[in-house]
Amino acid sequence: MKKLRFGIIGYGAQGSMYARFIEQGMVESMDLVAICDSDEVKQSQLVESFPNKKIYNDYKDMITSGEVDAIITTVPHYLHPEMAMFALNNGVHVLNEKPAGVYTKQVKALNDFVATNSDVTYAMMFNQRNNPLYQKIKKIVEDGEIGPIRRTNWIITTWWRPQPYYDQSAWRATWGGEGGGVLVNQAPHQLDLIQWIAGVPTKVYSKIKHGFRRDIAVEDEVTALMEYENGATGVFVTCTHDLLGTDRLEILGDKGKIVVEDSKTVTVKRLKESENILNKNMDMEDVKRLFMGQMNTKDLYSTEVFTEESAWGEQHSGVLENFARHILYGEDLLAPGAEGINGVRLANAIHLSTWTGEEIVLKDFDDDLYLNELNKRIKEEAKFDLRR
Amino acid sequence: MKKLRFGIIGYGAQGSMYARFIEQGMVESMDLVAICDSDEVKQSQLVESFPNKKIYNDYKDMITSGEVDAIITTVPHYLHPEMAMFALNNGVHVLNEKPAGVYTKQVKALNDFVATNSDVTYAMMFNQRNNPLYQKIKKIVEDGEIGPIRRTNWIITTWWRPQPYYDQSAWRATWGGEGGGVLVNQAPHQLDLIQWIAGVPTKVYSKIKHGFRRDIAVEDEVTALMEYENGATGVFVTCTHDLLGTDRLEILGDKGKIVVEDSKTVTVKRLKESENILNKNMDMEDVKRLFMGQMNTKDLYSTEVFTEESAWGEQHSGVLENFARHILYGEDLLAPGAEGINGVRLANAIHLSTWTGEEIVLKDFDDDLYLNELNKRIKEEAKFDLRR
Repeated sequence: MKKLRFGIIGYGAQGSMYARFIEQGMVESMDLVAICDSDEVKQSQLVESFPNKKIYNDYKDMITSGEVDAIITTVPHYLHPEMAMFALNNGVHVLNEKPAGVYTKQVKALNDFVATNSDVTYAMMFNQRNNPLYQKIKKIVEDGEIGPIRRTNWIITTWWRPQPYYDQSAWRATWGGEGGGVLVNQAPHQLDLIQWIAGVPTKVYSKIKHGFRRDIAVEDEVTALMEYENGATGVFVTCTHDLLGTDRLEILGDKGKIVVEDSKTVTVKRLKESENILNKNMDMEDVKRLFMGQMNTKDLYSTEVFTEESAWGEQHSGVLENFARHILYGEDLLAPGAEGINGVRLANAIHLSTWTGEEIVLKDFDDDLYLNELNKRIKEEAKFDLRR
Repeated sequence: MKKLRFGIIGYGAQGSMYARFIEQGMVESMDLVAICDSDEVKQSQLVESFPNKKIYNDYKDMITSGEVDAIITTVPHYLHPEMAMFALNNGVHVLNEKPAGVYTKQVKALNDFVATNSDVTYAMMFNQRNNPLYQKIKKIVEDGEIGPIRRTNWIITTWWRPQPYYDQSAWRATWGGEGGGVLVNQAPHQLDLIQWIAGVPTKVYSKIKHGFRRDIAVEDEVTALMEYENGATGVFVTCTHDLLGTDRLEILGDKGKIVVEDSKTVTVKRLKESENILNKNMDMEDVKRLFMGQMNTKDLYSTEVFTEESAWGEQHSGVLENFARHILYGEDLLAPGAEGINGVRLANAIHLSTWTGEEIVLKDFDDDLYLNELNKRIKEEAKFDLRR
C-alpha cells in the first residue's frame, strides 16, 4: 500500500497530537518520517522519542531533504504562509494549520501560487469540516432543503480562556506575535464553517472590544453583523470571557430553519412549501385565525431532531487521511487551501470595521490598508518587528 | 370603593379588548364610562352594545366633557402623542398605547409637559412589564445576581405576519400611515423590555431591510447592534417573515447568565464568584486542566430552571388596574409615561442607522434629522401628509 511521507513542522500541542495519531495507525495512508522544531530542548527529546525519524531544527532543511512528500505547519500563525510557500516552491505538498495566515496579503501570495501550480497540493487543516454534524448541515443547506438563506446567527462563546492562558508566552494575544485574539486563535473554526455552510458574506460591520475582560491588547469580545449576496443578514458573536459559554447556530431559509445547540443537537424544521408561497396563499380569514390563536402553524412544517458527535481525534486524523488520499488517489479535498483565505479575510474585516468604524465590503477588501493598520498596532506594542 | 372613570379612544382590536376586561370586572378600580370612535358604523354599534355608556365621535369632546378622569389611546401610532397631550392639557390622566409615538420629537413634547405638571398621570400600556416572567428577570438583574451586563442578545422573530395582514388597510406598513414596520408595530414590547431589564444603550448600529420578504415599504427584517454605557454589547434581531419564529433572550453578566426561551422557560446560571475574580484566581495548572478537559467548570456555578407564563388578559388588565390605583392611591406605576420615549428612540435610531449607514449615539439623538428623513420617505410614498 502506498503511503505519503509526511513531515511535521512544529512539535507543540497540535504537532505532537498529529504525530500520535499517525504513529497509532489512525492515518492509514501516511508515514510520519520527519519532525522539525526550532527549540533545542525539544529536539533532543524528539531524537530520544523517535529514534527512527529524521529530526530537524530548520524547516527548510527538512523540506529540501527529498525525504518528505508533504508537511504540516503547526507553528505560530504568522509563519503559516511563509513555510507553506517555501514547501510548495520546492514541490512539497502542504497541509496548512488554521488560520491560513494572519492577514490576507500574505495568504493571497499562496493562493496565487497554487492557482498556477497544479502539481502540488495545498490544503487546510479545517478539522471541523470533518465533523459529521456540520457535514450533514452543509448537505441540508446545499441540497436546498431550507431554501435560500434569510439569516444566520451564531453565538459561539464556549472559547473561555482565563488570564494565565494569555500570560504563558510573550507572543500570545499580541498584535506582533499572534496578530489578534479570539478571531485568530479560537474562532477560525467557526469563521470557516459558517462560510462553508452558508456562503461567503459580502459585507461586515463589527463591534469588537480589545482587552474587554482580560488584560490583553487584542480582542476578547466580538460581535459582527454580516450581509450576504442575496440581502440576507448574519450575526456572529464570540468571546473568551464567558465561563458559561453558549454555542448556538441558527440558519433561517425560505423553506426552513436549522438550529444547532452545543455543536451536538440539531433541530431541522422544514416548511411544506417555501414561505414565499405559503405567505402568498394566505387570505384575510387566515390572518383572522392567526390573531385569534386559531391558526395551527404546526401543520405547515415538519420537525426533525438529531444528535451527532465526532469521536476524539477522528476529525483531525480524517483530514490527514483525506489529504494523503487526495495526493495518492485524487480523492476530493475536504478543505482546499485556496478556501483558507475566507476565514482570514472575514477575521481581518471584523478587525478593520471596528478600527475604522466603517462597514467593510469584502470583495473590495484592502489588503494593504489592513496590514498598515495592523502594523500601527504592532508598532505601539513595541515588542515585535513590523510585518510586510 | 373609589373607581376611576375611564374612557377608551378608538374601538379596534385593543380598545374592544380593554372594554371587555373592564366590563367583566377584571379591573376592580375602573369604571368604563365612555368610548370614542370616529367611524360612524362603529358608533351605532357602540350605542347598541353599550346603552349605559357615553359614545363619542370626537375624542376632544370626550376629554372636555368632565365625565372621564382618564383615557387610553388605542388609535393609530401617530395619534398617540397628540391625543395624550390634549388630555393632559385638560387635566385628564393618560394611559398611552405603545409605542408612545412614532418619532421622538412628538414624544419629547409630552415628556416635557409631564415633567412640570405633576397633577396629571401619564403612563404607558407596556403590558409585558406585567408579565411575571420578565418581572422576575428584571429583579435578578437589578439585584446584581448576575453582576454588571457583559452582553445581551435577543432573537425575537415570532412576529410572523403574512401579506394579507399588511394589505388589510391603506395605512398599514406605510411611512406616512404607520411610520414603520416591525419596529413600530410588533417589537415595541421587546424594545421596551430589553431597556427596562438591561438598561438604555448608548449607541446603535443597524442593518434593516425594507420589504425584504413582504410587499411593503417599511421594515420586515431587523438586526441591531447596541452598545451600553459600560462597553457591553447587545444584539437585537426581529422580523415578520419567520413562520418558524425564534424567541430567545440571553443576558450575560460578570456573575452569571440568563437565557429565556419562548418567553416561558428561564435558565439562570449563577457563578459562585464574579468571573473577574474566578479568572484572576486561576493558575497555569488550571489552564492545563482546562485543555486536558479535566476542569469541571460545573463546580463554579449553580443552575436554576423555571417556567413562568401569564394568563390571557392578566397582563393588560393588570396595567389598567395599576394605572387606576396609582391615581387613586399613589401605587407605583409599572410604566411611567416618560419611559415611553426609550422604545421610540431606539426604534428611530435603528431606522436612522440604516438610512445613514452610521452608528447612532443615543444621547445626541437628532430628533429633527430623524423627522426629516422620515418625511422624505412619506413624500416618496405620496399617500399621506408630511409630519412635523
